[in-house]
Amino acid sequence: MFPDIDTPAVLVDLDIAEANIARFQAHCDAHGMKVRPHIKTHKQPRLARRQIEAGAVGITCQKISEAEAMISEGGVDDVLLTYNILGAVKLERLRRLAGKVRLSVVCDSLDIAQGLSEAFSNAPDALAVLVECDTGAGRCGVQMPDAAAELAAGIAGLPGLRFAGLMTYPPVGRDAEVQNWLQRAVAACEARGLEVKLVSSGGTPGMWQAQDVPAATEYRAGTYIYNDRSLVTRGTCTWDDCALTVLATVVSVPAPGRAIIDSGSKVLTSDLLGLKGHGHVLGRDDIAVEALSEEHGILKADEIGLKVGDRVRIVPNHACVVANMLDEVQLVRGSQAEGPTPVVARGQVW
Amino acid sequence: MFPDIDTPAVLVDLDIAEANIARFQAHCDAHGMKVRPHIKTHKQPRLARRQIEAGAVGITCQKISEAEAMISEGGVDDVLLTYNILGAVKLERLRRLAGKVRLSVVCDSLDIAQGLSEAFSNAPDALAVLVECDTGAGRCGVQMPDAAAELAAGIAGLPGLRFAGLMTYPPVGRDAEVQNWLQRAVAACEARGLEVKLVSSGGTPGMWQAQDVPAATEYRAGTYIYNDRSLVTRGTCTWDDCALTVLATVVSVPAPGRAIIDSGSKVLTSDLLGLKGHGHVLGRDDIAVEALSEEHGILKADEIGLKVGDRVRIVPNHACVVANMLDEVQLVRGSQAEGPTPVVARGQVW
Repeated sequence: MFPDIDTPAVLVDLDIAEANIARFQAHCDAHGMKVRPHIKTHKQPRLARRQIEAGAVGITCQKISEAEAMISEGGVDDVLLTYNILGAVKLERLRRLAGKVRLSVVCDSLDIAQGLSEAFSNAPDALAVLVECDTGAGRCGVQMPDAAAELAAGIAGLPGLRFAGLMTYPPVGRDAEVQNWLQRAVAACEARGLEVKLVSSGGTPGMWQAQDVPAATEYRAGTYIYNDRSLVTRGTCTWDDCALTVLATVVSVPAPGRAIIDSGSKVLTSDLLGLKGHGHVLGRDDIAVEALSEEHGILKADEIGLKVGDRVRIVPNHACVVANMLDEVQLVRGSQAEGPTPVVARGQVW
Repeated sequence: MFPDIDTPAVLVDLDIAEANIARFQAHCDAHGMKVRPHIKTHKQPRLARRQIEAGAVGITCQKISEAEAMISEGGVDDVLLTYNILGAVKLERLRRLAGKVRLSVVCDSLDIAQGLSEAFSNAPDALAVLVECDTGAGRCGVQMPDAAAELAAGIAGLPGLRFAGLMTYPPVGRDAEVQNWLQRAVAACEARGLEVKLVSSGGTPGMWQAQDVPAATEYRAGTYIYNDRSLVTRGTCTWDDCALTVLATVVSVPAPGRAIIDSGSKVLTSDLLGLKGHGHVLGRDDIAVEALSEEHGILKADEIGLKVGDRVRIVPNHACVVANMLDEVQLVRGSQAEGPTPVVARGQVW
């Protein structure tokens, strides 16, 4: 199994990733919804470009450094930064970024909007700002539809900014509630004479039901390019759709029911996402990835049936954090290795 | 709070780290035990050098790339690699490493020993190999004291290798059991005419009780240089002994009991180590770091009492994995910033 790749290695199967990109793009095309992939999952300019080539209207980034890395090699000219940006250092970087790409950001308070306004008041173009809405997930976002409209009006009144729409990271499986929230927020904005050109929703777990929130005009998905064990468990995809796997070597078989692999929490991470165990060993449903220390993974089964030197491929619980652990991933197509590639935007502070 | 450091940032207080190094060295000196710090926690040559200067006999590494990085700047000439090394690529790198430093490794099976022997059979010096013993922690290691002696004899009989002693990563709080195990293994080796010059034990949680396993001649601790929330909870140290903290900024206060910070699982990691929550906010015992997404942390309290732009310092659950997340950490001494420094050995595949 990939004899020329040393382990532990993060493998990315491009055939599968490209099929994942194409399938979701086709789904959204069929429902008249725009796609704006979240690149935090792969952090690679080449994959962002493929998503654009497949029909995405632009990309989503969570950090300024991600955006800087994605536009460095060309092919990406539209970035939505779904994060409250504040502080002199980041605002200066945001100004520079705005000079290079069609940029929009979000905010969920007037504090953030005022910081953005100060930074962009003498910029050549107004910065497009979306209001982040907490439609039930309980993270960032204004709490009520009326508050969204009030903040939208605040943004529209600040120099250097223009109100560009609404954005939400919605709770999974509560589409009617999200639709109702957004519809009321749009109406409240329109009642103030503010046109809502864009309503951005997202999240890979709910992506096949994106059309069930018709108030949304575009959809941000990240994990869908790789998929992972959490998404297989939810029924969003199958094992065959998992583009990212960890290639590991058995380094010890201390007991008949236990094997130790060279992949621990510094590769697989400790993300559980509600699951038991730390990954799925492909072809071995009977094995549990029971525990991780930093560089060891502990596999358990009634009969482990592995020997020192054997290799296994593991679908991790959460692909986005695993792709962030090593300086490079190994590209493959089926059983064909295509060589390593750097994960350009990883490890950076902001 | 450190206005010139942008967030999120991993801060390392050198005053505290140096005090931690000195205190454990003094403890082991007083008990006639050698110290061999595990550098997987900090991954920085300069800190490895300080540990050596304080009296350590050498360092412990978990990966070949860690050893290569630690010796790159000089000051470290003795490395124990506590990992089963196998495969042509790694064995070749191990050969090169052995030419640069006094090197010892571990193994827990004849399979591993034979691989090492083939790689070192024509080396100028025999490779020192310790037998890894599973004294109850259930990870790697031979399962019984007699098996340790049998493998020791196997190593001694292989060209290119010399049997150098025993190594264990022991279970915490079962010192009598560990002592008994190691004593029996030493006796079994001696019964075969094999001298056991070195018995290496370790683990930060049990470090103040290192002397309670007198069969051990040296102790490997890693986390002790930084400490973390898991160790405070165990009573191993206090908050004032925690050298590594995450500096975060409040980016949103959506509700009176909730604040969102710019540090998520890609900085704090999802390691729980048996704890609830994802870290401790210094000075705010009432706050829970309730949930993390990749770039957001969700703080909860009855009254959160924070506003957008405020900064907090968080002691993470597990320092070793947090130090591995960003390309650089910020060195500080008290409230004085000393500038960033690269985490040299992070992100490397092997």
